[in-house]
Amino acid sequence: MSLVVVGSVAIDSIETPTGKREGLLGGACSYFSATASLYQPVAMVAVVGTDFPQEHVDFFASRKIDLSGLQRVPGRTFTWAARYAEDYGDAETLDTQLNVFADFHPTIPERLRGMPYLFLANINPGLQIEVLEQMNDPRLTALDSMNYWLLNERDLLEQAMSMVDVVTLNETEIKMYADNPNLLEAAQSILDLGPKALVVKRGEHGAMLITRGDSVGERFFVVPAYPQERVVDPTGAGDTFAAGFMGYLARTDDLSLGGLRRAVVHGSVVASFAVEDFSIDRLRGLSLDDIERRYAEFRLLTHFAPLCSEKQALLERPLDA
Amino acid sequence: MSLVVVGSVAIDSIETPTGKREGLLGGACSYFSATASLYQPVAMVAVVGTDFPQEHVDFFASRKIDLSGLQRVPGRTFTWAARYAEDYGDAETLDTQLNVFADFHPTIPERLRGMPYLFLANINPGLQIEVLEQMNDPRLTALDSMNYWLLNERDLLEQAMSMVDVVTLNETEIKMYADNPNLLEAAQSILDLGPKALVVKRGEHGAMLITRGDSVGERFFVVPAYPQERVVDPTGAGDTFAAGFMGYLARTDDLSLGGLRRAVVHGSVVASFAVEDFSIDRLRGLSLDDIERRYAEFRLLTHFAPLCSEKQALLERPLDA
Repeated sequence: MSLVVVGSVAIDSIETPTGKREGLLGGACSYFSATASLYQPVAMVAVVGTDFPQEHVDFFASRKIDLSGLQRVPGRTFTWAARYAEDYGDAETLDTQLNVFADFHPTIPERLRGMPYLFLANINPGLQIEVLEQMNDPRLTALDSMNYWLLNERDLLEQAMSMVDVVTLNETEIKMYADNPNLLEAAQSILDLGPKALVVKRGEHGAMLITRGDSVGERFFVVPAYPQERVVDPTGAGDTFAAGFMGYLARTDDLSLGGLRRAVVHGSVVASFAVEDFSIDRLRGLSLDDIERRYAEFRLLTHFAPLCSEKQALLERPLDA
Repeated sequence: MSLVVVGSVAIDSIETPTGKREGLLGGACSYFSATASLYQPVAMVAVVGTDFPQEHVDFFASRKIDLSGLQRVPGRTFTWAARYAEDYGDAETLDTQLNVFADFHPTIPERLRGMPYLFLANINPGLQIEVLEQMNDPRLTALDSMNYWLLNERDLLEQAMSMVDVVTLNETEIKMYADNPNLLEAAQSILDLGPKALVVKRGEHGAMLITRGDSVGERFFVVPAYPQERVVDPTGAGDTFAAGFMGYLARTDDLSLGGLRRAVVHGSVVASFAVEDFSIDRLRGLSLDDIERRYAEFRLLTHFAPLCSEKQALLERPLDA
C-alpha cells in the first residue's frame, strides 16, 4: 500500500567526530522517502528552491518516488548546519536558514489524497492539521514533532496528536510535554489525547511502543538499538526509523499489535544503517535483503525464551480490539 | 546448587524524591543474600560491628542464609548516607564511615570452599583475589566492581577480572576502564582479559550480556529495564540484579548462552522489585511465583517474532563451545 510523507527537504552541513561534510542532502522527507521506497511506493510532499541539485531529484526518481507534491519555488532551499560531540548525542545547531521552507504550505495533489498511509514529519503542527484535513480517510496516520513545537505551538500540536493514529517523539520530548519525569505517566497523557500508539525514540537506547492494554507486557514493547561498531552521522536516524516503521506497515498492511512491534524493529534496523554514513548515503545501496538480515540479528540479540501460544495470539489481535 | 557471596553489610541513610529514611539495612551482601536465597541456599561472607541490629541477623536466619562466614568484630558497622535527585540517577554520597569494614579480610570457612557458585560483590579487588585463591575450583565465579577501584587499583582489578567467569559493571565504568566511548570496543577489552561473559548494567535502560561469538546477535543480548510505575529507592538495584542472575544460574545449573540470557532477565526482574521500596523491604515478602510472573511480563514486553529452530539451538549450546 502506498505512502505519503510530508516534511522538509534540506541541504545540510554536518560535523561529527568522524569528519565534516557540506552540501549534503538532508531533511526528514529525504531520509523518509529514501528508506520507505525500499518497502513500498512513496509520494513526497515538500518544497525546494531553484538551487536544489538535479542529482537529488534524479535519485528520488530512481527510487520511483512520486514527486507530484514536491513544490519548486523561487529562492534557496532550506539549509541546516550542525555539529555532534564525541558521544554522538543531541546535535548542536550552528545555523538554520529556512529560506523557501518558511512559507511552505503543503498541498496534497488530488491523486494522493486517497493514499492509505500518511506520515507527517516534523513541521509546524498547524500544517500537519492542514494535511490531515486534505486526506480522504487514510488507513494509518502518524506524526513526528519536536521540542520547539511543544514549547511554542502546544495547542495546535495537541490537536494534531489527537487526529493521528500514531505519535512518534523522543523520550525527553514526551517527558517535557507532560512535565513529568516518569515516562509511563508522561506517555499516558499523550495516549489520552486519542492516538492508538506512541512510539518513543530513545537514541542509543533504542525505542519503545506504548499502547493501551491490561498488563505492562502488553502495553509496552521495548527494543534496543543495534550494537553499533561505528557511528558516522546520527542525522536523520529518527526520520529513517519512521520510514522503516511506516514502510513495513504499508508493505504488510498488518495493524495488529505484533505488526506494530515488528514495524518498530524495522524502524530500528533501518536507523542502524542510516547512522553508518553521512546523509542518506548508506541507504542508497541498501536492499530489503540487507534489512531482513539485520532484522534476523535483532531477533537473536533480544531473544531469551519463546512466548506461550496464548500470549502470541494476544499480539496478533488487531490493535483496536 | 549453593552460592557464596562476599561483600559489604551496611547501615544506610537514604534520601530520595519519595522520602528520607535512616538506619536501613544496606550493603551489597544484604541485597544479594535476601534475593538469591529465594532461588537457592546462600552463604554470606562479610563483617559487621557490635552495633549491628539483631533483627537483621534474624531476617537472614529466617531465609536460612549460612552466616558462618559473617564476622562480628568490636566497633561500628559500615555506614553510608546518600541522596538521589529527581531523575533517580547516580547517588550523591553524603557520608561514608567504613568502620569495621576498613580492616575486613574475608575468610572463607572450610565448609564453604567447595561451593559451586561464587559472587564477589564490590570490594577491594585485592580481597576478591584472596577469596578466589581460597575457593576449590567453583563452577561459576562472578565479580562486581566500581569506578573507585578502576581508578585506584587498576592492576589488581584487571587480575581479578582475569580470574572470574563473569564480570558485571555499569556501562559508564566499562567505557572508563577502556577510555573508549564505544561500548562494543570497551567491552571487548574486558573480555580480552579472560572472562567468558560481561554483564553491562545500564540502570533505567536495562542490561546487556556480551560474550564471544560470530555475529552481533550472538555476541550481544540486550534486555530493557521493567517499565516502572514508581521508583522509591534505587539503592542495591545492581546487587539485587547480580543475585537474580547468580540465583537463577545456581538453581538451574544451566550455563548455556540461553541460560545466561535468562539469568540476565531474572536479574532485571528482581532489580525491578528492589527499587519499589527502601532497603530490602520489597524483597522481604517476595516469592519465586512473583518473580516468575514478572519474568513472563518481560517475555511479552520484548517479544516481536519467534526465533527459528537453528538459532534457538545456538542459544542452548554450552557457553564454552
